[in-house]
Amino acid sequence: MQDKQMLMIPGPTPVPETALLALAKHPIGHRTSEFSQMMGEVTQNLKWLYQTHNDVLMLTSSGTGAMEAAMINFLSPGDRILVGCNGKFGERWGEVGEIYGLNVEKITAEWGKSLNPELFAQKLQGDKQKQIKAVIITHNETSTGVINDLETISTYVREHGEALTIVDAVTSIGAVNVPTDEWSLDVVVSASQKGYMVPPGLGFVAVSSKAWEAYKTAKFPKYYLDLDRYRQAAQNNFTPFTPPMNLMVGLQTTLEMMKQAGLESIFTRHQRLMQATRAGIKALNLPLFADDSCASPAITAVAPQKISADAIRTLMHKRFDIALAGGQNHLTGKILRIGHLGFVSDRDILCCIASLEGVLQELGWEGFTPGTGVVAVNKNLS
Amino acid sequence: MQDKQMLMIPGPTPVPETALLALAKHPIGHRTSEFSQMMGEVTQNLKWLYQTHNDVLMLTSSGTGAMEAAMINFLSPGDRILVGCNGKFGERWGEVGEIYGLNVEKITAEWGKSLNPELFAQKLQGDKQKQIKAVIITHNETSTGVINDLETISTYVREHGEALTIVDAVTSIGAVNVPTDEWSLDVVVSASQKGYMVPPGLGFVAVSSKAWEAYKTAKFPKYYLDLDRYRQAAQNNFTPFTPPMNLMVGLQTTLEMMKQAGLESIFTRHQRLMQATRAGIKALNLPLFADDSCASPAITAVAPQKISADAIRTLMHKRFDIALAGGQNHLTGKILRIGHLGFVSDRDILCCIASLEGVLQELGWEGFTPGTGVVAVNKNLS
Repeated sequence: MQDKQMLMIPGPTPVPETALLALAKHPIGHRTSEFSQMMGEVTQNLKWLYQTHNDVLMLTSSGTGAMEAAMINFLSPGDRILVGCNGKFGERWGEVGEIYGLNVEKITAEWGKSLNPELFAQKLQGDKQKQIKAVIITHNETSTGVINDLETISTYVREHGEALTIVDAVTSIGAVNVPTDEWSLDVVVSASQKGYMVPPGLGFVAVSSKAWEAYKTAKFPKYYLDLDRYRQAAQNNFTPFTPPMNLMVGLQTTLEMMKQAGLESIFTRHQRLMQATRAGIKALNLPLFADDSCASPAITAVAPQKISADAIRTLMHKRFDIALAGGQNHLTGKILRIGHLGFVSDRDILCCIASLEGVLQELGWEGFTPGTGVVAVNKNLS
Repeated sequence: MQDKQMLMIPGPTPVPETALLALAKHPIGHRTSEFSQMMGEVTQNLKWLYQTHNDVLMLTSSGTGAMEAAMINFLSPGDRILVGCNGKFGERWGEVGEIYGLNVEKITAEWGKSLNPELFAQKLQGDKQKQIKAVIITHNETSTGVINDLETISTYVREHGEALTIVDAVTSIGAVNVPTDEWSLDVVVSASQKGYMVPPGLGFVAVSSKAWEAYKTAKFPKYYLDLDRYRQAAQNNFTPFTPPMNLMVGLQTTLEMMKQAGLESIFTRHQRLMQATRAGIKALNLPLFADDSCASPAITAVAPQKISADAIRTLMHKRFDIALAGGQNHLTGKILRIGHLGFVSDRDILCCIASLEGVLQELGWEGFTPGTGVVAVNKNLS
């Protein structure tokens, strides 16, 4: 049905009406005090969200542009880096690093499992000459619905002393606790179409003073992604290049909503949504792709065995206008992913599982008793 | 007055209501057939606007991101390039080239004058060993309101045979004739917040087959700005990274408006707006910064001698909510710039000059007879 689409993919995520209407406000000049005031407020609220006193810079880019900036501003060709790889986005960091001639050492885990922090500890503790310049962790691996133990890994990096902690928090900020300062996260990357509840087009990079020290000796050529230009302009709440002010005005409204809710309440809600989704899926007797111990509060991956993941997605879309994500790379066709990130409420999970019940029945899946999915969700929401 | 702002800066430019409301439509999944269909239509209409059969790629970036992509995808360290410099944006191309270690040879003209095509001819004809790999021209120099003779310069580049023609058409596309194929323009760069009548956040790069040949041997590391990723994804009307689909849906509406008007009508309108603006300014006895022979159809720069340019801008904003642009770099405080690019009608020029009359009177400027500015504009609009 036209205009009835319900996004349950890990981005773009649903956008509240207030933000949609803010997007439709006429753009303003980006060299005016009106803009500067708005950007100042947005920046302050981003710092609150990132739990940091560091700079939080805004780029006109998708998350990938912000990822690349997070890497090339603080490293030089040949630098040894550790990259956690247990999904598509971890692999992407490795790919970017290799294109730039970094000495990329991957610490892997099977897709669907979490990274083992002890493997990082071994490498870091064995690096007596302090050659490791950065450790890159994808906090929430969107491709598999797995959350990595960033807190423990960042402790090992801190003990190493030299390496920067670079974090892909694209789908974790706004869903789960990311205390940037408390965990000494040097560079934290994210993007607007995720927990921020606005459409795509804005990338974010938080940068610590330790990272700015590393910036001074970093040798990759860069202009558009040169973060020092953003830092300098941000001192007066401007951007070095024309910013997407409509998105920023939208973000102004959603950050205000988030502040009114409070961080704890936001994290608790995502935890509840995750638990309810997982309980519903278990009741439907469909295998969850990630173990409970590393389940992401932002996205749940399901790996149906005797029934096609893509057939489920197609029918969810056709009958109920619910968009679910598919698998990526070698998981294409093998999993489906339910996004519960950002502007998602208890009702949405109920609605999704109830629809899934109908679709599974149509597809002839007899592994569950109709109604039990919704019962399990309701139990977990109470 | 709140919400009463009238943008007469060279970007962001005014956005029609249809596009503003399109921006407020809920984002859709960017891996869906619905998205692909929309992107296919937008791409086709961009090709119409660029008058080309070449690829026209869309990046989530400001114009500067697209500029950098246009350079680093087709050149290698040490390559000799000619860069036309007669304003801030020409200088920026030179700066990016130098950061990347290109052998940048600037061909300059005083800010406010146009580039002399014969200087390009001399360099190109003298290059018997075909070492010049690219000639970069800022078609419409936004910082000074000067249009360069791209047609003549591109003829000389074509005669050279080896060099690519890279064009900054950021503020010329949608205002003035840019026949990409007819003039053999290899790489053409622009951005959404200009003649396209949508807010900032989308960069465009048109790429010829000759440029794609050069791509094969280009050696700069790149990922987010790697245009081949965009080309490959565009074959199925997708983007390699999450696109700002709200802006694209807005662009879909404005391109449709442009198609209904027709290119000739759009160019004629900008020509008329320019002539009316210049006639009005002359009647007010304020010096125009650029000569009639190289005046931009997108923006008119005014260089008041006995009266402060910034005082005029401040009062235009305060009394009439009209935003005019100031000077950049060494022209700060010395000129003001009136944007008449994109969604601008005859009425807007009348309104601007009428307001300017009031402001000049308040500032005590006695060099004109009140009323004559508006008379001159009306005469040029009839």
